[in-house]
Amino acid sequence: MYLLKCQTRFKTVAIAVSTLFLSLGAHAAHPNLVITTDDVKHMRQAISSNSSGKFATAFELLKAQVDEQIAHPITVPVPKDGGGGYTHERHKKNYQLMYNAGIIYQLSQDDKYANYVRDMLLDYAKLYPTLDVHPKRKVDSQNPGKFFWQSLNEAMWLVYTIQAYDLVYDSLNAANIKTIENDLLRPVSLFTSVGQPSTFNKVHNHGTWATAGVGMAGYVLGEPEWVEKSLYDLEKSGKGGFIKQLEMLFSPQGYYNEGPYYQRFALLPFVTFAKAIENNEPQRKIFEYRDGILLKAIDTTIQLSYNGLFFPINDAIKSKGIDTIELVHGVTTAYGLTNDAGYLDIAKQQEQIILSGDGLKVAQALDSDMAKPYSFKSVAFGDGNDGKQGALVVMRTQVGGDQALLFKPAAQGLGHGHFDKLTWQFYDHGNEIVSDYGAARFLNVEAKYGGRYLPENETYAKHTVAHNTVVVDETTHFNANVDVGNNNHPTLNFFETNEFGTVSSGEISTAYKGVELERTLALINLPELESSIALDVFNVAADNAHQFDLPLHYKGQLIDTSFELKASTTQLAALGSKNGYQHLWLKGQAQPQNGLAKVTWLNDNGRFYTQTSLVKGDESFLFTQIGANDPQFNLRNENGFIRRVNAQKQHTFISVLEPHGEYNPSKEYTLEAVSRVSALKYTEQDDLVLVQLSIKGKSYLVAINKAHSTIKNTFKFQNKVFTLNSRLGVYAMNNNQE
Amino acid sequence: MYLLKCQTRFKTVAIAVSTLFLSLGAHAAHPNLVITTDDVKHMRQAISSNSSGKFATAFELLKAQVDEQIAHPITVPVPKDGGGGYTHERHKKNYQLMYNAGIIYQLSQDDKYANYVRDMLLDYAKLYPTLDVHPKRKVDSQNPGKFFWQSLNEAMWLVYTIQAYDLVYDSLNAANIKTIENDLLRPVSLFTSVGQPSTFNKVHNHGTWATAGVGMAGYVLGEPEWVEKSLYDLEKSGKGGFIKQLEMLFSPQGYYNEGPYYQRFALLPFVTFAKAIENNEPQRKIFEYRDGILLKAIDTTIQLSYNGLFFPINDAIKSKGIDTIELVHGVTTAYGLTNDAGYLDIAKQQEQIILSGDGLKVAQALDSDMAKPYSFKSVAFGDGNDGKQGALVVMRTQVGGDQALLFKPAAQGLGHGHFDKLTWQFYDHGNEIVSDYGAARFLNVEAKYGGRYLPENETYAKHTVAHNTVVVDETTHFNANVDVGNNNHPTLNFFETNEFGTVSSGEISTAYKGVELERTLALINLPELESSIALDVFNVAADNAHQFDLPLHYKGQLIDTSFELKASTTQLAALGSKNGYQHLWLKGQAQPQNGLAKVTWLNDNGRFYTQTSLVKGDESFLFTQIGANDPQFNLRNENGFIRRVNAQKQHTFISVLEPHGEYNPSKEYTLEAVSRVSALKYTEQDDLVLVQLSIKGKSYLVAINKAHSTIKNTFKFQNKVFTLNSRLGVYAMNNNQE
Repeated sequence: MYLLKCQTRFKTVAIAVSTLFLSLGAHAAHPNLVITTDDVKHMRQAISSNSSGKFATAFELLKAQVDEQIAHPITVPVPKDGGGGYTHERHKKNYQLMYNAGIIYQLSQDDKYANYVRDMLLDYAKLYPTLDVHPKRKVDSQNPGKFFWQSLNEAMWLVYTIQAYDLVYDSLNAANIKTIENDLLRPVSLFTSVGQPSTFNKVHNHGTWATAGVGMAGYVLGEPEWVEKSLYDLEKSGKGGFIKQLEMLFSPQGYYNEGPYYQRFALLPFVTFAKAIENNEPQRKIFEYRDGILLKAIDTTIQLSYNGLFFPINDAIKSKGIDTIELVHGVTTAYGLTNDAGYLDIAKQQEQIILSGDGLKVAQALDSDMAKPYSFKSVAFGDGNDGKQGALVVMRTQVGGDQALLFKPAAQGLGHGHFDKLTWQFYDHGNEIVSDYGAARFLNVEAKYGGRYLPENETYAKHTVAHNTVVVDETTHFNANVDVGNNNHPTLNFFETNEFGTVSSGEISTAYKGVELERTLALINLPELESSIALDVFNVAADNAHQFDLPLHYKGQLIDTSFELKASTTQLAALGSKNGYQHLWLKGQAQPQNGLAKVTWLNDNGRFYTQTSLVKGDESFLFTQIGANDPQFNLRNENGFIRRVNAQKQHTFISVLEPHGEYNPSKEYTLEAVSRVSALKYTEQDDLVLVQLSIKGKSYLVAINKAHSTIKNTFKFQNKVFTLNSRLGVYAMNNNQE
Repeated sequence: MYLLKCQTRFKTVAIAVSTLFLSLGAHAAHPNLVITTDDVKHMRQAISSNSSGKFATAFELLKAQVDEQIAHPITVPVPKDGGGGYTHERHKKNYQLMYNAGIIYQLSQDDKYANYVRDMLLDYAKLYPTLDVHPKRKVDSQNPGKFFWQSLNEAMWLVYTIQAYDLVYDSLNAANIKTIENDLLRPVSLFTSVGQPSTFNKVHNHGTWATAGVGMAGYVLGEPEWVEKSLYDLEKSGKGGFIKQLEMLFSPQGYYNEGPYYQRFALLPFVTFAKAIENNEPQRKIFEYRDGILLKAIDTTIQLSYNGLFFPINDAIKSKGIDTIELVHGVTTAYGLTNDAGYLDIAKQQEQIILSGDGLKVAQALDSDMAKPYSFKSVAFGDGNDGKQGALVVMRTQVGGDQALLFKPAAQGLGHGHFDKLTWQFYDHGNEIVSDYGAARFLNVEAKYGGRYLPENETYAKHTVAHNTVVVDETTHFNANVDVGNNNHPTLNFFETNEFGTVSSGEISTAYKGVELERTLALINLPELESSIALDVFNVAADNAHQFDLPLHYKGQLIDTSFELKASTTQLAALGSKNGYQHLWLKGQAQPQNGLAKVTWLNDNGRFYTQTSLVKGDESFLFTQIGANDPQFNLRNENGFIRRVNAQKQHTFISVLEPHGEYNPSKEYTLEAVSRVSALKYTEQDDLVLVQLSIKGKSYLVAINKAHSTIKNTFKFQNKVFTLNSRLGVYAMNNNQE
């Protein structure tokens, strides 16, 4: 008990005399990481006083689950398997279980939970000294674990386990403390920090997990130096570490360079460690850092979802969404910081209550029906730590259905980034319409390449042709070189949202040498038709003649084309031999004549979509299905079509995407199965793009001002004068008076 | 008013002095078809006294819908378009609208609804005399319509319109009555009866619509002869007509020869006309006919559904299910007849209340929370009017998930039947696992072959290879000849359900000359594993050597095979040139060695399925995808594999299908991704099939008694004595004692 008694509040004196506490316990009271003794007091109260509330229910649920699990003997197996294998999954379960049992101990004050955690920790302390690096580590890996094949999982183990230890600390005797700290927690922390400088110092989400684990261990084990190193890297240079990560990994708007799937994943150690810092050293004002970057990061993660799922850019697994546990922690923290009732709307959809101080606030607010609709917005999220390395653009509308258009003039996004500059995705009525493949991976399915990223992730999913953007000469952006990609980014030319809709334009000249790619996308409201349409103008200009391909990957079944389609009926061949083309079967081709070229498909939910392209007879349409050169049947067999022009120096791909109608075979009706677009004309006047669109008997003029700086005020079109004071204008044309 | 006053109750005197009423009105009171004046009284009461009940809500809903529709001008266009086209859909909407407005008139007593119906009827009466047969009729059609391209739709028009007329009759003046009857209803009735004897007399659902329409017109227009002809055919011979249809189109258990999709469709005129007969001539005891065949037919339609959708055998559109309006009428009538609270469970799921006397009973019972769970059972539904032309077998279990196995030793099912003798389908957790293509059709989508059955329905969907049953020499059952199919049916050898599960066996020797096909399927409960498995033993015996193919069409993505799979990676070719094979791409092949050959797939809902086949090295596995020779992209690109043996006189295909595990990428866990079946052995002892199965560390002996008549009581296996008093036994084998 001596150890416990001589502790003082670490946070009040840590900076001045931190070395003093090296061999002692750390913060005065346990727990004091994410959950404080104060939190515990309120949580206990909530459980005893309100057994029907959401918090009490969550407690009962977790307790029942923990009870079920601790009824089984403790199993701490010798590490053997890779991701998805038995020992891997067991060790993952163990740290989660220790954490949960620690929470239940604090709330129930029943020693059996603490004893269970203690016994497991002692088993780990017995095992750890006997371990070499993991047998399933990657060859020449810079970052193996010991419990796990990669140190990322090891760091996650530490993040959970150090919190579990903190939660049961006050129940342990000195001998146990000594064993657990000296044989397990200290060596794991050292292995994770000084043992792997390349990971620990890396400004990357793997580094965040490592610094979060080691930093929190620093607080708990009384090692303020570890905290300093976690914050500022092993040399305390500030070139790496948690603070640098906060500075570099998010844009000023809180967008994480790798995209929402990884942003969600990265969020947990950020939020967890920040909360621990706040509780131990509030004077660091960590949540105020960079104008509240952490809160922005949480909020942006929510904004980057549609119908509950994250926009699947880069190496994303497409079923991840706002109910992932990391974002539950994030939203809980965000509400704790802001009391913004919009977060309760998200918390409601998440249907999970975190057993923490902030979790209690969320639960009580939900119990009192305080949620207000969270507001999804049209936003251009600046990319890069300065927010100027392109942007990820989200356009939304509620006219004619809940629609979203994602436009990606964003930076590469490191090793998990895809070579898809200026790609887009389209969503309608809750579904993907123009889609992105996401990652080629079956997470934790051993038979599928050990549950890791499949080889086809490199050979298909990352390549440009797997996306909805221009490919030059069947070659991938940046020649598929990640470093070149990371060093070059598109420019966001403009973004604006107004009553007519949202418009944005971006460009890049470094994806291909001597080729300028410039794309302008607009999501346009046509309220009198209760419809929205997406306008796409993709301009390619090159020094020399090239082949330009613009793929569109659609979800659904082809219903009709306005042109003759020559299908490959008895034989299919791969479309190409490399850069992803080797994975596409060529199912048919066509050479539409001058005018409108329409492709209509029907999605699984019974809605029709037509892309109307304005062509001059020089675009051929190649219809494809994913699945060639796929010996293990690893790829999903999805459909698409590629618009192709050959041997051109310049080409403008112009098209309109239009959701329409309904197919209801159950009720035996089919409405508006045919595209309503009857005319599409394109002209330019200096920096003005002018598109005439006839749809469902109505004619519109869409004007987009692409000028770099000034905004043009008036222009003449068909002998009439129009005024445009913004980037986007939509004018109803009175056909009768013409 | 003279006409109205001199009417008497038709039903009391109709038979005796029917000719007397020829020029007068018909039944004394209007309405008196499905809805009677008595019903109207109760319905009006319900609306006025209980505005929050389900019935009143349904009334308000329909009234609002009718109000919206009758605000538009009446449109009775000159017929021009085929199915799905404008005039087709408009005339369909018109008869529905007249019927609905008639109901609302009776309930609201507001003349404007009756006047709307009157005006539309008068417009139709003006149009009809000007019409020749429909311009879009099939060439040389025996059954064109005038408003519609086929007389089926014309008969449906009459079924609705005669009811609408009956509903507004009491508001009409004599001049209107004369015009509407003489210029419209009489000529349409005559065109539908004496004008098309081949359809009217046909024992087929098209005949049912025609007889229902004409028969009800007989009641309303005072033409008892029409009623007689509708009941007993134009010659009153009893060889055709409604009564013959009741006798011939359903098996004694109420199974409709064409399958549930058409059973549902056929149900409406049966139920409607029967109800009208009951109300006009209760002495005919129509609902008691054939031991209550109509009620059995309704009930069987419900039984032939899974997770709300009908089993998609034959030309079925797969999204049709228990909420289709025809079955809403059926369930409403069934509850009216029986007061069985199980039907309320279905009515609840249907979420639609019919505005009729029975509909009121359903609504009031649902308001009083009287629903009790409807009980889905394992049943062999005898096929054919004698119930002895094979059977459609449904096996169900709740062990390890809500599962169903459909086995089809059923008859051909007329022109919409598929050549799929002894095929099966499997369902788990609400999803299709082993699937049937259903019909190749996009209902009412003009671009897809005018919304009719696609050419690929004939060239693919009906063929044997599109199903999960044996194909000999790449030739379709009965050489794809419908007449031969209709004249030959499989035999149901046995069906039994007990504590161990359900087993059934069927055979057919006429699908191929000189080839016996015999299949035994069992859905076996393994409660100690919380699992069920499906056992399949398909025995083929031929006079000469042949190629035998057994396809399995699965829903999902291939995860693993236990054998080496040689995929076609750079080129795909069609598997064959005819009988559906021309529509299958050959994606890969394999020749598994002696032992267990496993194929594992993952469905969209994250569950794994493994088929384990017991092979001797003589089965090759051909992996296929639908889509070859499909120039219009009409087919869905679904996956399958075909087990093939060459040049054999006999072969037994033995396999076990096992659902297992869970793939949850959102929560990042994967459970039991690998098949648990570790051993499978097969032996026969006389008429006993003995299968040893090791699964998840447990061993079982499955015994199936195939004896034709006697039940064997004891048998010896591995020196132990077993007792089997039924068709199916499952014995846990104590491995330790062996």
